[in-house]
Amino acid sequence: MRLRNIKEAETKIYESPYIIEDYKNYKGKFNELFNNNNPIHLEIGMGKGNFIINNAINNPGINYIGVEKYASVMIRALEKLEDKKIDNLKLICFDASTIEEVFDKEIETLYLNFSDPWPKTRHEKRRLTSDTFLKKYTSIFKNKNHIIMKTDNRKLFEYSVISFNAEKYNIVDLSLNLYEDNPLNNIPTEYEIKFSSKGFPIYKIEVTK
Amino acid sequence: MRLRNIKEAETKIYESPYIIEDYKNYKGKFNELFNNNNPIHLEIGMGKGNFIINNAINNPGINYIGVEKYASVMIRALEKLEDKKIDNLKLICFDASTIEEVFDKEIETLYLNFSDPWPKTRHEKRRLTSDTFLKKYTSIFKNKNHIIMKTDNRKLFEYSVISFNAEKYNIVDLSLNLYEDNPLNNIPTEYEIKFSSKGFPIYKIEVTK
Repeated sequence: MRLRNIKEAETKIYESPYIIEDYKNYKGKFNELFNNNNPIHLEIGMGKGNFIINNAINNPGINYIGVEKYASVMIRALEKLEDKKIDNLKLICFDASTIEEVFDKEIETLYLNFSDPWPKTRHEKRRLTSDTFLKKYTSIFKNKNHIIMKTDNRKLFEYSVISFNAEKYNIVDLSLNLYEDNPLNNIPTEYEIKFSSKGFPIYKIEVTK
Repeated sequence: MRLRNIKEAETKIYESPYIIEDYKNYKGKFNELFNNNNPIHLEIGMGKGNFIINNAINNPGINYIGVEKYASVMIRALEKLEDKKIDNLKLICFDASTIEEVFDKEIETLYLNFSDPWPKTRHEKRRLTSDTFLKKYTSIFKNKNHIIMKTDNRKLFEYSVISFNAEKYNIVDLSLNLYEDNPLNNIPTEYEIKFSSKGFPIYKIEVTK
């Protein structure tokens, strides 16, 4: 799937069986897409897809939905899926700032991997762990809120720990150097592979509410 | 003040005007020792004293009490004080596991610097940020609980963040690499000077409740 330009990506991605174009019709009933009632795990900002694709392959009893804002990035994930048949994986191309309009009481776990740190204070509300977003997420979860976040960005991580704490989340697990802890079953993102191999610490937090 | 043995330290320290030997008589009225009602800041595990001595010198409007378990370590702090007259500093040699029996509603801020990490799970209750200790501290604070912690020990820090969160503390500030943040007015401990100069990250957290 070679691309000449971004505009082409925006139409091209809808040729893939993994992409849900009419996702707005599935609010509260995404399980219908999978024909089962298995738990649904969501990744916002799935990028080139390594994390969510490998999770889906390794965990057939869980349904995975990946969200990516940019079609030009999503198409890189679709390239990896071209010769694969993975029934428990669906992908959506949209901006997560409207996440609460798309899902309703149906997500078990939310993954935030190497999200844009938006370092400027005036962009704080755009960070995926700002109080604005944490409030939006509340209505998407089926049972209790459950978020797992990884990042190499120290400032974003410090901000996120403070934000989760302020929004009364319980910190279930925390690592300030994931690779020193030799985590079993850790599935890295493309970005994570690059940065951890350079020796930068990868931060991880798991919270519930 | 040269020492031949630890036993000698245990008697020697009481020759210093900084040491409060009859500290059990001051529960709830430590302000009497300072002849004023300035806020009292407490450091548990003051070690060789660099942090608390320099805080006292820099902040004459705050009273400082340093606690150290080992007389053999306390004596190193006393050596630094031999030619100094610092009215807002008092030191006590005792084991902080009975902290709630010594202070009562009179501490403004508690400092925990480079505390023993007690890495074994069976020693968890001995960590100064365990739920056991966090519960003990509650009765020593005058107004709201206010704790500032620094450490280079990653596992102790991860544990402490989880513990503060579980005990419903608000995380006011957090740094996962204090020296990269170039903090103004940071007063290091002896241990901190050594480890930060080797490039190891120093972790800091400030919490209230």
